[in-house]
Amino acid sequence: MVKLENMKNISSSDSVINLDHGDPTAYEEYWRKIGDRCTVTIRGCDLMSYFSDVNNMCWFLEPKLAEAIKELHDAVGNAATEDRYIVVGTGSTQLCQAAVHALSSLAGTQPVSVVAAAPYYSTYVEETTYVRSGMHKWEGDAWGFDKKGPYIELVTSPNNPDGTIRETVVNRPDDDEGKVIHDFAYYWPHYTPITRRQDHDIMLFTFSKITGHAGSRIGWALVKDTEVAKKMVEYIIVNSIGVSKESQIRTAEILKVLKETCKSETENFFEYGHEMMKNRWEKLRGVMKESDVFSLPKYPEAYCNFFGKTLGSYPAFAWLGTKEETDLVNELRRRKVMSRAGERCGSDKKHVRVSMLSREDVFNVFLERLANMKLIKSIDL
Amino acid sequence: MVKLENMKNISSSDSVINLDHGDPTAYEEYWRKIGDRCTVTIRGCDLMSYFSDVNNMCWFLEPKLAEAIKELHDAVGNAATEDRYIVVGTGSTQLCQAAVHALSSLAGTQPVSVVAAAPYYSTYVEETTYVRSGMHKWEGDAWGFDKKGPYIELVTSPNNPDGTIRETVVNRPDDDEGKVIHDFAYYWPHYTPITRRQDHDIMLFTFSKITGHAGSRIGWALVKDTEVAKKMVEYIIVNSIGVSKESQIRTAEILKVLKETCKSETENFFEYGHEMMKNRWEKLRGVMKESDVFSLPKYPEAYCNFFGKTLGSYPAFAWLGTKEETDLVNELRRRKVMSRAGERCGSDKKHVRVSMLSREDVFNVFLERLANMKLIKSIDL
Repeated sequence: MVKLENMKNISSSDSVINLDHGDPTAYEEYWRKIGDRCTVTIRGCDLMSYFSDVNNMCWFLEPKLAEAIKELHDAVGNAATEDRYIVVGTGSTQLCQAAVHALSSLAGTQPVSVVAAAPYYSTYVEETTYVRSGMHKWEGDAWGFDKKGPYIELVTSPNNPDGTIRETVVNRPDDDEGKVIHDFAYYWPHYTPITRRQDHDIMLFTFSKITGHAGSRIGWALVKDTEVAKKMVEYIIVNSIGVSKESQIRTAEILKVLKETCKSETENFFEYGHEMMKNRWEKLRGVMKESDVFSLPKYPEAYCNFFGKTLGSYPAFAWLGTKEETDLVNELRRRKVMSRAGERCGSDKKHVRVSMLSREDVFNVFLERLANMKLIKSIDL
Repeated sequence: MVKLENMKNISSSDSVINLDHGDPTAYEEYWRKIGDRCTVTIRGCDLMSYFSDVNNMCWFLEPKLAEAIKELHDAVGNAATEDRYIVVGTGSTQLCQAAVHALSSLAGTQPVSVVAAAPYYSTYVEETTYVRSGMHKWEGDAWGFDKKGPYIELVTSPNNPDGTIRETVVNRPDDDEGKVIHDFAYYWPHYTPITRRQDHDIMLFTFSKITGHAGSRIGWALVKDTEVAKKMVEYIIVNSIGVSKESQIRTAEILKVLKETCKSETENFFEYGHEMMKNRWEKLRGVMKESDVFSLPKYPEAYCNFFGKTLGSYPAFAWLGTKEETDLVNELRRRKVMSRAGERCGSDKKHVRVSMLSREDVFNVFLERLANMKLIKSIDL
């Protein structure tokens, strides 16, 4: 429950809080405590060339980053890295577009349909429509998709916005026209039990949601097929001639520390993140418990190979629903809480996506406003 | 002329030299000498948020970078910064696409024609075609372009590949359908005399070609119109949710040093760059002089407001031509010199673009191979 006595100053604040974006500032505290171990120093003459490794197909990928990525996945056990290419991107945002572009380029006919099961990450809609490409076409909800011809299914697991574990939903018998992009942005131990080592054709990851370093704009793809990887690299070359070397070097350093500390009793980032997320979810569910206005998804427990015990899921977003016929995003906005409308995610007005990764004080203000909202609602009824 | 005595080890080398890309490694030496003054230190807890300045329309632009950009333009006198927006991008590559996207979005009818006067920067073709956008259409050479409807002219000055000073060439009377994007990547004192303070609607700049920090992937646009700036920002949000903060902070630091030293007698980067480029061009023209095979453009002298004297132009690329009917890019490839084919730049087989910004040893190998090529040619004749 919200401890009101700790919140006097903040609760008197009248400012708008933005939980629309998933800005992962919640983790700043950890990195402040870790001190100089992750400090990166770059001299004026460092990292000047476009090229990081001319012998790599993805020649703009810093070898140190490639190594750190492999070692971290090995330590966490969430994804297979052997026998596949690593493609680095300016966030997984750029990589998702690179992957859709690559698969579309290689399809027999165009435009290729792009689908995702609702509720889906709203940004997929923008990413696949904003340039009005003739190569692919956003076809919306994958549930019930039955258009003929080549298609790409975007599978986000745990899902953004609702935190559920996902598999493909378009399953055609003997289908060789369907391709899948797995977005594993949140498949890390602080959010969800690591139940298997993922081993799909195209898997996307983002630095932002692991450690909270969203400002670095670093993502990576693990790609099995040579031609797909090549086309993705080509896309990134034309789109931005590679990816910031400074960000890559810093990411490599931080991932290295993440890996080194991930078995530590005292400094394990995933342990820290898990405790924080669990705590926030318990607080949120506490507020919900006394509410007959709101609903939240329930997540099954599962055995986590990383932590070696059975655990629940604590997603990066809360998929908040209301039992009443109301426009929830506007209701929250009236209480100065910005959230993402369910409709943008292929759902309805009765749902919103709320970031669980804000700074602690903002999260507490959110809880308090939610609690008050419940009361106001009760009075309204 | 090439000093062969200094080149024994290198000239015996049999390796391919790549002068196709304009990788600006020539400047590394300067930054090595400048030492710790540009060293940037980033702690683990720094720069974590997506947001740099929530009050700026371009909320992912680091305020320090904005300040450094303005101060540098003021000191150099090459572009007006007042009363316009600064939009930061992952290189000017991303910004050029953002600008084309923005202008196309705001045009009455689509697709909008995109043109550039030949010879043009070959990457423009890829940038405007690779996603097969329905919003704009690459129409090639601006000379002779006469299609009705809205159009965008890309003006690069000094021009890439041929180093000439450019103005718009599509000039329709009472034309309100034509928009112009000015690419000023090379409008800096080491390449060309600064004859005026540019003051156009959309002006693109890139960190890569000023100081040689191509690996940072930082560019910026100076944009007059609010709606255009907004649309550019929107493009970059969907394309990559902003731009690496590490690169922005480092760029800010280096631009600050550039500005501080730009009136210095001993440390002036532009003086250093100017001397180096002048020296390389003199060497290259020396080789050309004895050749009846190759040609190079001639550039008029002009008064440079920055240096306060009359100077020549020393472009970042040599636009090498041959008087004979030959496929020059292949001829050079046979001599293990990679260059960019004139045809890719809307020109012909008798021209190639060669980077003048390679490391010194590579540049010297290039000169030597060119000199030998002349001899072989003479024997061939």
